Amino acid sequence: MRLLLLSLALITAHPAAAIRARDFGIAPGPMPTGPLNAITDVPGMAVGQVTLDRGDTIRTGVTAILPHAGNIFAEKVPGGIFVANGFGKLMGLSQVRELGEIETPILLTNTLNVPEAAAAIIEHTLSQPGNEGVRSVNAVVGETNDGGLNDIRARALSIADARRAIAEARPGPVQEGAVGAGRGTIAFGYKGGIGTSSRRTPEGFTVGVLVQSNYGGRLILAGVPIPPPPGKTAARVSADGSIMIVVATDAPLSDRNLTRLAARAMAGLARTGSAFSNGSGDYAIAFSTANSVRRTAARRAASTAYPELGNEATTPLFIAAADATEEAIANSLLAAEIVTSREPGTDETRRAVALDQALIRRLLATAGQPAR
Amino acid sequence: MRLLLLSLALITAHPAAAIRARDFGIAPGPMPTGPLNAITDVPGMAVGQVTLDRGDTIRTGVTAILPHAGNIFAEKVPGGIFVANGFGKLMGLSQVRELGEIETPILLTNTLNVPEAAAAIIEHTLSQPGNEGVRSVNAVVGETNDGGLNDIRARALSIADARRAIAEARPGPVQEGAVGAGRGTIAFGYKGGIGTSSRRTPEGFTVGVLVQSNYGGRLILAGVPIPPPPGKTAARVSADGSIMIVVATDAPLSDRNLTRLAARAMAGLARTGSAFSNGSGDYAIAFSTANSVRRTAARRAASTAYPELGNEATTPLFIAAADATEEAIANSLLAAEIVTSREPGTDETRRAVALDQALIRRLLATAGQPAR
Amino acid sequence: MRLLLLSLALITAHPAAAIRARDFGIAPGPMPTGPLNAITDVPGMAVGQVTLDRGDTIRTGVTAILPHAGNIFAEKVPGGIFVANGFGKLMGLSQVRELGEIETPILLTNTLNVPEAAAAIIEHTLSQPGNEGVRSVNAVVGETNDGGLNDIRARALSIADARRAIAEARPGPVQEGAVGAGRGTIAFGYKGGIGTSSRRTPEGFTVGVLVQSNYGGRLILAGVPIPPPPGKTAARVSADGSIMIVVATDAPLSDRNLTRLAARAMAGLARTGSAFSNGSGDYAIAFSTANSVRRTAARRAASTAYPELGNEATTPLFIAAADATEEAIANSLLAAEIVTSREPGTDETRRAVALDQALIRRLLATAGQPAR
Amino acid sequence: MRLLLLSLALITAHPAAAIRARDFGIAPGPMPTGPLNAITDVPGMAVGQVTLDRGDTIRTGVTAILPHAGNIFAEKVPGGIFVANGFGKLMGLSQVRELGEIETPILLTNTLNVPEAAAAIIEHTLSQPGNEGVRSVNAVVGETNDGGLNDIRARALSIADARRAIAEARPGPVQEGAVGAGRGTIAFGYKGGIGTSSRRTPEGFTVGVLVQSNYGGRLILAGVPIPPPPGKTAARVSADGSIMIVVATDAPLSDRNLTRLAARAMAGLARTGSAFSNGSGDYAIAFSTANSVRRTAARRAASTAYPELGNEATTPLFIAAADATEEAIANSLLAAEIVTSREPGTDETRRAVALDQALIRRLLATAGQPAR
Repeated sequence: MRLLLLSLALITAHPAAAIRARDFGIAPGPMPTGPLNAITDVPGMAVGQVTLDRGDTIRTGVTAILPHAGNIFAEKVPGGIFVANGFGKLMGLSQVRELGEIETPILLTNTLNVPEAAAAIIEHTLSQPGNEGVRSVNAVVGETNDGGLNDIRARALSIADARRAIAEARPGPVQEGAVGAGRGTIAFGYKGGIGTSSRRTPEGFTVGVLVQSNYGGRLILAGVPIPPPPGKTAARVSADGSIMIVVATDAPLSDRNLTRLAARAMAGLARTGSAFSNGSGDYAIAFSTANSVRRTAARRAASTAYPELGNEATTPLFIAAADATEEAIANSLLAAEIVTSREPGTDETRRAVALDQALIRRLLATAGQPAR
Repeated sequence: MRLLLLSLALITAHPAAAIRARDFGIAPGPMPTGPLNAITDVPGMAVGQVTLDRGDTIRTGVTAILPHAGNIFAEKVPGGIFVANGFGKLMGLSQVRELGEIETPILLTNTLNVPEAAAAIIEHTLSQPGNEGVRSVNAVVGETNDGGLNDIRARALSIADARRAIAEARPGPVQEGAVGAGRGTIAFGYKGGIGTSSRRTPEGFTVGVLVQSNYGGRLILAGVPIPPPPGKTAARVSADGSIMIVVATDAPLSDRNLTRLAARAMAGLARTGSAFSNGSGDYAIAFSTANSVRRTAARRAASTAYPELGNEATTPLFIAAADATEEAIANSLLAAEIVTSREPGTDETRRAVALDQALIRRLLATAGQPAR
Repeated sequence: MRLLLLSLALITAHPAAAIRARDFGIAPGPMPTGPLNAITDVPGMAVGQVTLDRGDTIRTGVTAILPHAGNIFAEKVPGGIFVANGFGKLMGLSQVRELGEIETPILLTNTLNVPEAAAAIIEHTLSQPGNEGVRSVNAVVGETNDGGLNDIRARALSIADARRAIAEARPGPVQEGAVGAGRGTIAFGYKGGIGTSSRRTPEGFTVGVLVQSNYGGRLILAGVPIPPPPGKTAARVSADGSIMIVVATDAPLSDRNLTRLAARAMAGLARTGSAFSNGSGDYAIAFSTANSVRRTAARRAASTAYPELGNEATTPLFIAAADATEEAIANSLLAAEIVTSREPGTDETRRAVALDQALIRRLLATAGQPAR
Repeated sequence: MRLLLLSLALITAHPAAAIRARDFGIAPGPMPTGPLNAITDVPGMAVGQVTLDRGDTIRTGVTAILPHAGNIFAEKVPGGIFVANGFGKLMGLSQVRELGEIETPILLTNTLNVPEAAAAIIEHTLSQPGNEGVRSVNAVVGETNDGGLNDIRARALSIADARRAIAEARPGPVQEGAVGAGRGTIAFGYKGGIGTSSRRTPEGFTVGVLVQSNYGGRLILAGVPIPPPPGKTAARVSADGSIMIVVATDAPLSDRNLTRLAARAMAGLARTGSAFSNGSGDYAIAFSTANSVRRTAARRAASTAYPELGNEATTPLFIAAADATEEAIANSLLAAEIVTSREPGTDETRRAVALDQALIRRLLATAGQPAR
């Protein structure tokens, strides 16, 4: 029975020619993007998404972010997590902070399926060749609450779904909008979801960002206030929700400076008008994919000469993280399509509409954008 | 098949007349204990344990700690978590810190079954009467790694096991030693496990502690060094492992002062000779059970006059937490029985022996204890 | 000799009819301001400023913020400090975090005169009637680096200067711009300084903010990018500097929620285009002035019923803190006048020009502001 | 007048043949000490102390710890600070945390003279050759409250005193007991003060510790309870006070692992019976003196290959820090002589007696020490 249901899960395909923020002139900051304008511009990065769109109530999914294509447990990456508002169920926090490293794929999903995602990471890690002796795994899982569209209490995501997202992770373009962990999320009253963007610093480093947008406030795109959807009052005061932000870079940063990099993502979030409300879980996870800073078993037990970008060389990366976050969020909104579902236990239809692209164009033109 | 295996799980019975640290004169600090010398001396507290002792490889379990007998999600308790060394997979950290409250039972288990314990807490919470609209649950789960005796990679604990520990939680005496989450743990080369103790402050408050001991170093009981088991070298330098400490009190403390209370548990841990090694996850979770500080839905959304013990009245509670932790750890060791198992994939027998009680008596007598 | 120099210090007068951000339609967020649109809208608050403009090299000063008119040490206020980027010399951090309270006036000054400001707070506190037995004082001092205009190595501020700022603190309007601790600061290449703003929440609470702006990035006012001063390149990438933000409220918040309130000030900062660069010390200090939560000696040593606004009632205050910070920063820039000085040891003149008000009006009009 | 008073300050001489804990068999842990059993066993380290013993009321001083003999600002050392209980006025916390580095000598003094110590550090740094362009200095100052013997409200320490401690810092033996910042401190009712100890790890690294002991609880030496001084009741419950712990190592640790190293000092503190009371400021500052990890200007602005001891190689250093702290505290007590003073404004004599060495010998012998 379960297997039958699983077969209904959508396999996300790579997108054809999706609408993105840059098409509207939304291009925060002075730095250029990478070729894909995606987190996968950081070499070695892979993303996998499984979307559950089942019956008239299940609208959820899972998004996997892999720092590199090898055995992540064996070759851990330095990483840090910044918690701007900790109303959330993120797993893995204390060990990442203590050891300064990430040893698994990162999964994003809905609030009540964090255990299944964590179990999938553990199973995946235990089963990898070379990990036969592994008895401890620090799964990193983030979440936002998609209960506004998804029957979240059904806890629909299975361990197998989450493992599939890991298995199917690929480099290349990343599908945005109402897919994966973003299938059921809502931001500013509009359909939110997965978005991504990247920046190249003058020094040649790449910073890539992927977000799962599900929060509220007073939407601002390129500095221009955007009204809430028709029929919805200004969502700002009451709006809860959350956002998970993942920041990858190929710069050789220490875990301390990666935590600082993660903190800068919040500046980009703020510029989109987030209310940073009590109930919004606002988290950013950052890591470095640089080969030279990977922590192999040999390195972890000895003295190793890691290259490290000095404190005073970090500012361009910090700016890149903020700008790419702002754009990734805009992408998550602009790529999202309308999603409807039935409120469990009722006949009521729930609906999150997409941003009105014509309206956005008009408002930005009036404001003199894309002169920014 | 799974149901069959489940039927082999042991139901922990309340203990008859177990050996405890006080029988050896180990009674740290000036304050008296509560009637049971257990975390359950704190009014309303309940503990439930499910022990898995299956075949010749599974030696694990789960211990549930319930702050009160009501709907914890509806009536949250103020709480705090102190991380002395964050090499661990504890769940729930960021939300407890952000909101200063615990909204579920606390479960302790093995490292790789944290997801199952978390899923059990979520299912339990969703299913409680009054929680029909709940769509967000911050499960608090702690763990230590019992892979030295348990086939931890089998991930033997099921969601049902963990739910049973919650369902069977009771006030009254707490079984100690190689039970529940302590079934497969090892401390200082000896069999460790679950231990508990309590203190009454001069002001009439109770502080109760429960530990899951699984760490190493140089064992000290009542100030007296205790040698490692025969055939084991001084475990100190190399010993990893972890400890989970849960501190309950009926004093009306703010979440900030509960976090400080949790920090004091580490002083008791230090006095037992912990090495605080790189790989030891050393966590303490503290909460207040006082009715007056419970956070009901009405209180969370309005201005409420909570009683709060001032900073300058906290010291006796701090001392109580340290002393009760030291004694709870001693209890966990002294109550433990020998546990053996087969190393998975081999014919090798693994064994953790109990402390040699005659030796302890002799060493403590020589040192002039129980004069302490 | 020293007294002679002191007589040259400017006594700041209350402003007549200064230009403020609202005059340009810069009015972030939906909530109204208090009557003064200043931190002093929070009842009981007082601000005192001493400006040092001495010879051709000293351009510095000190700004004192007093949570109430009584003996602050005897009646401490709950408080919290949020550090977005800790490149700074703020004093008092660990005790505010540990005890959740502020027990002195808060002083802002330049980086190298923090000791003198701290000494002034200590002397002031020791000398207050009722404090004859006080032997421990946790001075809270913030700073930014005004070395771009001020001969900061001269450490020109005296203890007496700082004590005078405390002594002369008054309720009522607050002078903005190049005064007090803002005399020598520079933001976005323009003259920055002291700015203030306030908000009234729908529930009737007031949130007041005061900033000392001295940071860089890509200036944004009301969502509209503002170019750097003529002859300066886009300051964004390289610009360091700092900002100190003080947030006062009459809402009865716990110290935990005050720390969260402080964190929200960073959202306002982000919306002005801060680069959050490596070298920018970005700090916010928040406290509650509510009589009901003051921590008197009797309350600190006993159990007290403090009213506390629940977590779920905090969002409007959070939004207010972000919006008031954004506006306070704009005020600090718009009120600032040109300041010049001589670079010590050279003949070079240094200069920070004020924002070009006509340009601002034009850019905001083009962008459709003040429609925001 | 001030100069006259200064001439009364004692210049601390290097000790002849002081009594130390090892003379009593107090030698915690398995590792050997360095040649001096002092923080100065770490190559390059220097310590300077100025003791103020003036009239019948001033009993205070300052202790300077220098990570290396060069220009510390130019060649910063990686460092971390662990706050076990933040009731204290330590300066420099946020920048050390943010940047992971210490750029000045560390000074310890009394609570109310922190500003003078900080000013001394700033003046010292500005005046060093090569620092002519320095405009920002993060002074690190720790303190404990010696108001039990010292007229602390007189704020007797001058900037010149503190500068002298820096100027006179030397490698070699360190004077212990009632000297420098330990002149007026009291621990467990006995005279406390400055103590130091060191350990050599099996891998050949040195860990050195220096403490300023001024705290309370239930004194334990080598596991043996020591009663309070005659006429004083068990100091445990009420005793406040503080301790500053400085940990130096030549191991190439990252700032994160140095913060973890600092945390381990608290285990040694706990083993001496600290109550970790509400009012006890319990801080540890750790840094690495290894040349290879010094952060020069060139390294801070570029990518540098720093050697770094991996997480899994840290445990021996952690154990060394705990053991050396326990012994340094014992040294601080055993080296201290009786100090008396007059309570300011009264005719009352205050007195802190030294530990009764004969009693200690007897108690330790009874307990079978030094068998530990």
